[in-house]
Amino acid sequence: MNHIPVAIIGAGPAGLTLAHLLHLQGIESIVFEKRTRKEVEETVRAGILEQGTLNLMRETGVGARMEAEADHDEAIDISINGERIRIPLTEITGHKVAIYPQHEYLKDFIAKRLEDGGELLFSTTVDAVEGTGGTGGFDNDKVKVVYTEADGSSTTISADYVIAADGSSSPYRKIITEGSGVRVRHEYPYAWFGILVEAAKTQKELIYATHPEGFALISTRTDTVQRYYLQCDPNDTPDMWSDDRIWEQLHLRADSPGITVSEGKIFDKAVLRFRSAVTEPMQKGRLFLAGDAAHTVPPTGAKGLNLAVADVSVLAPGLVRALKKKDSALLDDYTKLALPRVWKAQHFSYWMSSMLHAVPDEDYFATQRRFAELHSVLGSEAGQRYIAEQYVGRDLPRFEV
Amino acid sequence: MNHIPVAIIGAGPAGLTLAHLLHLQGIESIVFEKRTRKEVEETVRAGILEQGTLNLMRETGVGARMEAEADHDEAIDISINGERIRIPLTEITGHKVAIYPQHEYLKDFIAKRLEDGGELLFSTTVDAVEGTGGTGGFDNDKVKVVYTEADGSSTTISADYVIAADGSSSPYRKIITEGSGVRVRHEYPYAWFGILVEAAKTQKELIYATHPEGFALISTRTDTVQRYYLQCDPNDTPDMWSDDRIWEQLHLRADSPGITVSEGKIFDKAVLRFRSAVTEPMQKGRLFLAGDAAHTVPPTGAKGLNLAVADVSVLAPGLVRALKKKDSALLDDYTKLALPRVWKAQHFSYWMSSMLHAVPDEDYFATQRRFAELHSVLGSEAGQRYIAEQYVGRDLPRFEV
Repeated sequence: MNHIPVAIIGAGPAGLTLAHLLHLQGIESIVFEKRTRKEVEETVRAGILEQGTLNLMRETGVGARMEAEADHDEAIDISINGERIRIPLTEITGHKVAIYPQHEYLKDFIAKRLEDGGELLFSTTVDAVEGTGGTGGFDNDKVKVVYTEADGSSTTISADYVIAADGSSSPYRKIITEGSGVRVRHEYPYAWFGILVEAAKTQKELIYATHPEGFALISTRTDTVQRYYLQCDPNDTPDMWSDDRIWEQLHLRADSPGITVSEGKIFDKAVLRFRSAVTEPMQKGRLFLAGDAAHTVPPTGAKGLNLAVADVSVLAPGLVRALKKKDSALLDDYTKLALPRVWKAQHFSYWMSSMLHAVPDEDYFATQRRFAELHSVLGSEAGQRYIAEQYVGRDLPRFEV
Repeated sequence: MNHIPVAIIGAGPAGLTLAHLLHLQGIESIVFEKRTRKEVEETVRAGILEQGTLNLMRETGVGARMEAEADHDEAIDISINGERIRIPLTEITGHKVAIYPQHEYLKDFIAKRLEDGGELLFSTTVDAVEGTGGTGGFDNDKVKVVYTEADGSSTTISADYVIAADGSSSPYRKIITEGSGVRVRHEYPYAWFGILVEAAKTQKELIYATHPEGFALISTRTDTVQRYYLQCDPNDTPDMWSDDRIWEQLHLRADSPGITVSEGKIFDKAVLRFRSAVTEPMQKGRLFLAGDAAHTVPPTGAKGLNLAVADVSVLAPGLVRALKKKDSALLDDYTKLALPRVWKAQHFSYWMSSMLHAVPDEDYFATQRRFAELHSVLGSEAGQRYIAEQYVGRDLPRFEV
């Protein structure tokens, strides 16, 4: 039976970033991904990279294409019932964010992993992850991983550590929460209806718009393709949104003096669900959760990818210390170190969502209070800074290895 | 029929402050108060004076006793599940707040009003306020006020302007909202159970404490009398709270390392309701609402009195300009100028309440999110400043007269 120090399930932001960080410290890993490379690279997902994520890409040699191609935004606009207020992110925090879709991030890490000769198995399903402790637990000794590749061949390997980074439907969560853990969820009374449009940019920077009828987000993908979102009911289907209704609602919610949402051919319509979820703890013995496998955030704050990167910024040095120095103290503290940031990101996403969305049948008090909150926070230098520093993101945790 | 430029109904913070500000500009007024002077002066109500309110008292010659007797706090503490975090208000904002009960504020303004020879009629009910416009409206010409004094004598006077500052049950709101106005309310799923205790101070500064079981506020009245509050159900009655239960819950919610809530003889128990309400507009022709007659805030942010003072800081110069210069532009804009502050105060009170109180049957997500919000805002210099500047209060509006 072959042995690998770290087995990683899932080639998403958490898994690929972790494999890369481990490689830089001379730790071998293997990444299993059930989808094809094409599927991973072509599943379009929006993305805003925090300054910490940008820095990590740059510092670890994966940032070149992002630097060249991404829009590096220095501000965002918030439009409150047609009144537009700018948050000058860079002026306030000294940092920028990058508009860089998640699949582009993945492409860069996949290319780098393969260039570095890393083991990255697409179209491969993991059939079993088994503890080999006295009671079949994960508390000591190695873990057995059984996987089947695209050609149907089945292999069993042993690993020192297994990382479940296989997204929000991860089946490995149950192993961890069984007994003493919890999986908590929060449902929101709204969702996002997203469209891709062949149109010129409405403006360079994102516009987060709110209106008594609900939220809209004006974002951009390229000079000729724009991505717009409208708050909708979680049970809405794309056929309920005619082009006429889309444009009417986008203009109603997001136009403001000097800004008219640019129109064009709509070539993609989809409903994005809103959900928060947190798993506690994020580890059991030699099994660890990272990224969406551990926690889901709603899309408002664009924190999902960044939170995955933050997780593995704790996990990677923890694994390195445990494997190279036989010191597992940092790894043992993984949950304790990662979880406060997870909850702060949950709060930020919830807060941004609550300020900007109208709950169904929202009354006048609720609307006016929301608008007063936006005016309070945006009308204050301290308030702008408080929102901006969370938007560009806190520094990533750093540990010597 | 005698004539008075300004008739003010209610000797609360709005009414008495307005009468004083008008007097300083040479404008005569009469204040009607249905309660006795003793009742007004002895109805104990807590109070935190914002820096703007303190400045107004000082600058207009009513601040001497407050300066001498009030606790001028430079900080507050927030305790999150036993972890205490200090907000250094003065260090952050350059301002202090004063712990000065509302009835003490009223005593000072009553004394000053009488010293200045102002007309201040206690035990006097206003029987009618009647527009004398063509259709009995308040849009032009004078207003007739009929009142009955303690001796049973009834008098009718005419006034240029009538100010309803008679508290949250004001019957005059209806005249204003009839037709095109609104009265919006918000109910909260909790209330405060307040006690007065013969005990030493727990500490000099206030402690706002939250815990999965709910909120507690540790405040102080004198060196030997303390005022504590516990979040309770809105339907609770004082007999549901035994002394044992009170102390158990106060220690559970508000003790933290180095701090134990000081115990003593409980000599007063009462339930305070939580409610938000806003009236729009705050005026109709020659009739105006000020203070609680126009809006109610929950007690968390201690904004009620301060908001009344902010209202009359617009209303007083508006009346002076209208009466002395026949320029009613400022007065016409009263609602437009006063209302944004009202909504911001509503938001601040709602926000503080929501962060610090547990909703009934609050789930784990809600508790952890609340705590993460408190850690986000208090763990950030900008967040602390954002909360501190709202706590010490925005500058009062100032207008030349």
